[in-house]
Amino acid sequence: MYFASDNTGPIHPRILDALARANTGYAPAYGADPLTAEVVQTLREIFEAPEAAVHLMATGTAANALLLSTGTAPWQTIFCSRVAHIHEDECNAPEFFSGGAKLTLVETVDGKMTPEGLAAAIEAEETRGVHGPQRGPVSLTQATEKGTLYTLEELRTLSDVAHRYGLPVHMDGARFANALAGLGCSPAEMTWKAGIDMLSFGGTKNGLMGVEAAILFDPARSMEFELRRKRGAHLFSKHRYLAAQMQGYLEGGLWLEMAGAANTACQRLADGLRDAPGANLMFRPEANIVFARLPRATHRRLFEAGAQYHLWDDTLDGGPEDAPLAARFVTDWSADPAETDRFLSLL
Amino acid sequence: MYFASDNTGPIHPRILDALARANTGYAPAYGADPLTAEVVQTLREIFEAPEAAVHLMATGTAANALLLSTGTAPWQTIFCSRVAHIHEDECNAPEFFSGGAKLTLVETVDGKMTPEGLAAAIEAEETRGVHGPQRGPVSLTQATEKGTLYTLEELRTLSDVAHRYGLPVHMDGARFANALAGLGCSPAEMTWKAGIDMLSFGGTKNGLMGVEAAILFDPARSMEFELRRKRGAHLFSKHRYLAAQMQGYLEGGLWLEMAGAANTACQRLADGLRDAPGANLMFRPEANIVFARLPRATHRRLFEAGAQYHLWDDTLDGGPEDAPLAARFVTDWSADPAETDRFLSLL
Amino acid sequence: MYFASDNTGPIHPRILDALARANTGYAPAYGADPLTAEVVQTLREIFEAPEAAVHLMATGTAANALLLSTGTAPWQTIFCSRVAHIHEDECNAPEFFSGGAKLTLVETVDGKMTPEGLAAAIEAEETRGVHGPQRGPVSLTQATEKGTLYTLEELRTLSDVAHRYGLPVHMDGARFANALAGLGCSPAEMTWKAGIDMLSFGGTKNGLMGVEAAILFDPARSMEFELRRKRGAHLFSKHRYLAAQMQGYLEGGLWLEMAGAANTACQRLADGLRDAPGANLMFRPEANIVFARLPRATHRRLFEAGAQYHLWDDTLDGGPEDAPLAARFVTDWSADPAETDRFLSLL
Amino acid sequence: MYFASDNTGPIHPRILDALARANTGYAPAYGADPLTAEVVQTLREIFEAPEAAVHLMATGTAANALLLSTGTAPWQTIFCSRVAHIHEDECNAPEFFSGGAKLTLVETVDGKMTPEGLAAAIEAEETRGVHGPQRGPVSLTQATEKGTLYTLEELRTLSDVAHRYGLPVHMDGARFANALAGLGCSPAEMTWKAGIDMLSFGGTKNGLMGVEAAILFDPARSMEFELRRKRGAHLFSKHRYLAAQMQGYLEGGLWLEMAGAANTACQRLADGLRDAPGANLMFRPEANIVFARLPRATHRRLFEAGAQYHLWDDTLDGGPEDAPLAARFVTDWSADPAETDRFLSLL
Repeated sequence: MYFASDNTGPIHPRILDALARANTGYAPAYGADPLTAEVVQTLREIFEAPEAAVHLMATGTAANALLLSTGTAPWQTIFCSRVAHIHEDECNAPEFFSGGAKLTLVETVDGKMTPEGLAAAIEAEETRGVHGPQRGPVSLTQATEKGTLYTLEELRTLSDVAHRYGLPVHMDGARFANALAGLGCSPAEMTWKAGIDMLSFGGTKNGLMGVEAAILFDPARSMEFELRRKRGAHLFSKHRYLAAQMQGYLEGGLWLEMAGAANTACQRLADGLRDAPGANLMFRPEANIVFARLPRATHRRLFEAGAQYHLWDDTLDGGPEDAPLAARFVTDWSADPAETDRFLSLL
Repeated sequence: MYFASDNTGPIHPRILDALARANTGYAPAYGADPLTAEVVQTLREIFEAPEAAVHLMATGTAANALLLSTGTAPWQTIFCSRVAHIHEDECNAPEFFSGGAKLTLVETVDGKMTPEGLAAAIEAEETRGVHGPQRGPVSLTQATEKGTLYTLEELRTLSDVAHRYGLPVHMDGARFANALAGLGCSPAEMTWKAGIDMLSFGGTKNGLMGVEAAILFDPARSMEFELRRKRGAHLFSKHRYLAAQMQGYLEGGLWLEMAGAANTACQRLADGLRDAPGANLMFRPEANIVFARLPRATHRRLFEAGAQYHLWDDTLDGGPEDAPLAARFVTDWSADPAETDRFLSLL
Repeated sequence: MYFASDNTGPIHPRILDALARANTGYAPAYGADPLTAEVVQTLREIFEAPEAAVHLMATGTAANALLLSTGTAPWQTIFCSRVAHIHEDECNAPEFFSGGAKLTLVETVDGKMTPEGLAAAIEAEETRGVHGPQRGPVSLTQATEKGTLYTLEELRTLSDVAHRYGLPVHMDGARFANALAGLGCSPAEMTWKAGIDMLSFGGTKNGLMGVEAAILFDPARSMEFELRRKRGAHLFSKHRYLAAQMQGYLEGGLWLEMAGAANTACQRLADGLRDAPGANLMFRPEANIVFARLPRATHRRLFEAGAQYHLWDDTLDGGPEDAPLAARFVTDWSADPAETDRFLSLL
Repeated sequence: MYFASDNTGPIHPRILDALARANTGYAPAYGADPLTAEVVQTLREIFEAPEAAVHLMATGTAANALLLSTGTAPWQTIFCSRVAHIHEDECNAPEFFSGGAKLTLVETVDGKMTPEGLAAAIEAEETRGVHGPQRGPVSLTQATEKGTLYTLEELRTLSDVAHRYGLPVHMDGARFANALAGLGCSPAEMTWKAGIDMLSFGGTKNGLMGVEAAILFDPARSMEFELRRKRGAHLFSKHRYLAAQMQGYLEGGLWLEMAGAANTACQRLADGLRDAPGANLMFRPEANIVFARLPRATHRRLFEAGAQYHLWDDTLDGGPEDAPLAARFVTDWSADPAETDRFLSLL
């Protein structure tokens, strides 16, 4: 009954196999090895983007902060949702890597920026000459931190708003595979065809030990990115082990298989929660996260039985027993249906 | 015949085993897992430092930059050798993480700062009130970038110089194990007992995929370090896989076994080079690196036969064939004596 | 009819006299001159703060950014009003000087943070361990950007909220004198006696060419401040000319005389606006700023007659002629009642 | 007998007059006033550079740091002399404003970088791919910190070296007027015609209260510069008072008149020192600075008689009385020949 996060599960055995296969003899360091070249090529093919610049690193925060700082001046402001990971959960990493850029929080519904909210936020900036911050990139998260998905239409609309002002669009794809599995579209459709300029392509939350790919669909700033990565101490010397994980991830569609399993587990959980007495879902669960309000007494019972998940915005003892209390449940590729059923039986 | 670097070799099979063992079920993220706690404890024991703060990350540059910035103000200057990795090979990472501190290059002999050089450099700073940079930490590399070692006496003398001015001492121990094997002393003797305040304890160059431990012997700034690590995007979510590697590394003294093997291979190589016609060693090889000058023609012959290593400070076609040309040779735990012999036979 | 800003007016003739008096012979540079020592002493007396650290610089943004960064870590967030000058009008200077700290925008009514809003904002941060930003200083503006004033009681309440969490309180006093004249209290009462820890004591908007004093009521971080000032290129070499202006400002209460004149001019203007057809004041004008909504047609008439002031949040041609359009009017010490009357007669 | 620095003297009375003249009525803030436009135009004419971007600020360190950071990436290194003000006397301001760029110290003779030294320093960088810093701008000081001058030929040669590598050249002209008076050439000849791309045009050390002009001969990065200036808190609101000083400075050639007076005073002093027993000049005094070694006993006698100047690299009590001890003497526009003669009579 472990729904705390998708970064608490094990890695897929095929990833370990890939590491073992890569572990023979000497290989050039810092990404000059053949495996890295191969993985870059594979990602370009998967994204139908033969020119894209693709770089690997170990953490999602690094991918986000490095991409967002590339091409961004420190006197700009980055537009993102109020609940964006880059705002709430990265300890000022975007500010650090950009040299002091600001984040402008955009009106958000169900974890998603609205086009009107984004346009209003952009319009409100850069109205004071050199006095206020200048407009910078737009960053959106797919799947969102609330477990919802932007439709392709919504992505295109937001990108259009950004591009109308000449601003690039970044997608935080920490749960890219879950989103893709949810939408059932192609990687290209969910990114550059919808106007996404830069992508943090996550692997860590979906069965890897710690590998993310930063993809710049326009490779013009690839060298700047590489220098930022090195300066940020995110260039791995034994780079083949990042590449091996990513290779194993992509091979045979393992990444989509794992994301599909996580999403299915989430649906099973969400269906049970939807039917549980006193429970109500807070957002439409479209990937591998479900938020629900449950009575405090129920939470207490679940925790006592060993369930693991995060309460949200409040504490167990912060109100009356029958008052509903929000919680977040996340599933991963290794979720066991029996465990989910045991959890649901406790409701 | 692969002597390009110690980050080009494979990882030790026992490290893969350790990863596989750690790969079961769910574990708390971000270092709250039991394996991380265990590894921290093991390192404290190995260093006879029960209070030390120990944090893991994936790259040596991260360990260096995070440690050097902890407690350092951006208006200070860091004292280091002219050939320090932090100066030459980290793309301004120390400057980045410290928010713009300076590096003051200290007179260096055989890759080692001299006490007189260090004292003179410290004396020369902070003589202009608020106008010049203020004195900051001292950073030394053990084993040095030239393959030499500071003796314990030398470490103590340098630390004494730094402490006389109230400055903390950082050791870049990317090749800590090689140095320890070379000196034959205890980890405590080579660090806090010799006045070292902070240590980048390397694993990556010695058989791991990518794990380093940052050790603060005085834990007072441990929380600052953790915030810097997170802000720098160096906090791993699936932290157990860093811990597992480090566990495998320390278990049964594997780390010293691997370092010993690398050092032995280096001695074999150095002995051969010493006897080779036209060759001369540039520094006393005391760990797993040897620098030697060889005639250009010899280099050409070696490269043609498939040898891999780095020329230093010049290019193959930069001078006459019989002029000596410097090169660096690095050995790792997996070095094959037969390959070394084949290399030497080509000389 | 010049109400564009209080930084568009002339400096007081007595300030020019003070400069001329200071302009004799040689004087030590960088603040070591006797005039600077005298001015520091005078400010300590005016503030009944004999221990306070007092430093001069030329711009209000410098005073704010230097004070806010002193003692603030880059992984913290600064709490301020949504309309704070530090957020809207300093081109990310607080982010720059702090090395990438965040600004958390607090619920604001009439330009003033509410204690509930501040408490809620503080509570919402630092709930995610190392993942989110840590709580940093609170910054409030007195007089506010909307021309309103915090009462002493309100200041004390806000400071209490901040101090309850161990957070220091900064006051942006770009219009400190106007606020003081408005409240009719003592400088000590409006600052440290009300819990203010750091003050940007403005002079530029009130008749000086460009001088502000940064006051740290607790001098413990005075040296850090001085290093930040020098590193920020804000330490004047010919420092006596900053000191001379400030001396002339304080001498004989000129500063309060000028602020009183500006406030009186503002009242005259506000009274006229209050009575004008179709006009309505947006906030209670308590210092030297008044915001009012006027029909577009009226604005047009005023501009055509040569009036100078800023429209707010919209443009002249952005809507129907009879729709009210907000504008800001600022008065300064040199305001001419005849000009004000001429302006009002046009309404 | 005041030779401590050229920032300790008074400002020229005509500067005060210019301030008084500018002090009438209202004027747009932040540089939008007519006086600023006029001064910009005058500087363009003086420099025969009709397209140049010209911006004013109050300190030389600001001009240097803002210019050097404009167009410079934080992973680059700035090339400068070992005795450059930007390295020794700006408390890491270049590092701060650039976001952590490095300074590479170039071989220096008599305060001047040599072309060979510069070429060697440039060659030594950017040899390690993304691992080392990338090459950034070259910064030279004219007149140098040692009181010497680059000839036009030397300037051209150094610029050629920099441009060969595609690097821009910055001139720290804190004593630009003294240099110009020394060389007897035109402003254009000493700058863009000699390959200088950016100039800190100093006024503060030569009779102003605190005004410098930053000149970008190629205006392409003018807006970036303006945003950096505002973000650095160096944009003056009452900008006309900066402009007025600069106007008074340029009007009727006052700037060159003052520099000429300072240089003449320096020659008088240097001639006397040259002839004094036990004294010897350390560099050829070509502007308004002279370095000389004098016996300690002589220094003691001079200080006792009230002379003010800085000992260099050592202290009065640091050695035997008859051992020579270096000192720096600086003259300014207001130097009194009688005082110089009194000083010389004491030798």
